[in-house]
Amino acid sequence: MDFSSKLLEQAVDEMSQLPGIGKRTALRLVLHLLKQPESQTEQLAAALKKLRSDIKLCRNCFNISDTELCEICANPNRMSEIVCVVEDIRDVMAIENTGQYRGQYHVLGGKISPMDGIGPSQLSIKPLIEKVKAGKVEEIIFALSSTLEGDTTNFYIFRQLEVTPIKTSTIARGISVGDELEYADEVTLGRSITNRVPFESSMKS
Amino acid sequence: MDFSSKLLEQAVDEMSQLPGIGKRTALRLVLHLLKQPESQTEQLAAALKKLRSDIKLCRNCFNISDTELCEICANPNRMSEIVCVVEDIRDVMAIENTGQYRGQYHVLGGKISPMDGIGPSQLSIKPLIEKVKAGKVEEIIFALSSTLEGDTTNFYIFRQLEVTPIKTSTIARGISVGDELEYADEVTLGRSITNRVPFESSMKS
Ligand SMILES: [Zn+2]
Ligand SMILES: [Zn+2]
Repeated sequence: MDFSSKLLEQAVDEMSQLPGIGKRTALRLVLHLLKQPESQTEQLAAALKKLRSDIKLCRNCFNISDTELCEICANPNRMSEIVCVVEDIRDVMAIENTGQYRGQYHVLGGKISPMDGIGPSQLSIKPLIEKVKAGKVEEIIFALSSTLEGDTTNFYIFRQLEVTPIKTSTIARGISVGDELEYADEVTLGRSITNRVPFESSMKS
Repeated sequence: MDFSSKLLEQAVDEMSQLPGIGKRTALRLVLHLLKQPESQTEQLAAALKKLRSDIKLCRNCFNISDTELCEICANPNRMSEIVCVVEDIRDVMAIENTGQYRGQYHVLGGKISPMDGIGPSQLSIKPLIEKVKAGKVEEIIFALSSTLEGDTTNFYIFRQLEVTPIKTSTIARGISVGDELEYADEVTLGRSITNRVPFESSMKS
């Protein structure tokens, strides 16, 4: 793209570094900002900068939080002995939305991915192991996405905890409620048969 | 969405005010920035703010430009007596990309749209009329999108210039080169028949 303005080009270049935002979309977004009051651009810039510089992680679960201990970890009604291991805050939000989970979380901040140069040390795995070894946890629920990276991460953590007596589980994979069997992928369908549940207990949910 | 952090919520709120960016996408973009070095967020914020505060429009054609007169208007090889009227810089870039146009532009900054509260006074229509009335322009080419708003804007300008002897034209609408007739919409196909060109002249392009 040939820009008539360096200022415009720089803004588009920066914007198009965001994932899924091509040059064309970036230009559309930037031109939109130019039509809005200057205050909107200032607020957007300020909110992004403030978040990036002031961001804190809960010291117990490593979820994004404005307080030292997040609301979930600080809630005495949540069972601290059950810990659900997730990748990031979106998973926490998704599980919280179900209203079905009363334990705590541990947010890894990503998955082990040698391809992307992400090893165990870049994730909050060590604090999880320490938490478990301190005897504060009874059950760990792995809720990472079932990809190669997710499985690798689950297995890495599992191995670290092998000598520690603790219950581990993974969330059930299966056909989505309401989905037609014929449209399900084979792996999911296979797992949903292998991990079939007693009819009685399936009636409860 | 229920956020565990006000900082995160504010950043997502601001980001999701951009057109076509929903809350979910905004969260994904913001979480991406959190994983990148702080410098990336700072550069993005700075580029947007600088563009918004320092943005200049060419005093002749009103295109975005870092100089008082844009490169096109300052180019002595461009014919200043032919002016192509467009909506915004994207149209200028698209037409420049064809390499077929050697005249100048006039960037309106939008289209007349009562629905969106945009009247003639918010667009750079007056300077165009003045430029024409000063006798500096021989032909005006309307290149606005052929929507209700585009047609309204064309007609408004056309009426303002009725008493001025000047040639006006609109870009040809027709079937895209290489497109199958059967997939063309009726209006375009209709116009391409009405505005058919002599076979000889069609061979030149
Ligand atoms: Zn927490
Ligand atoms: Zn210009």
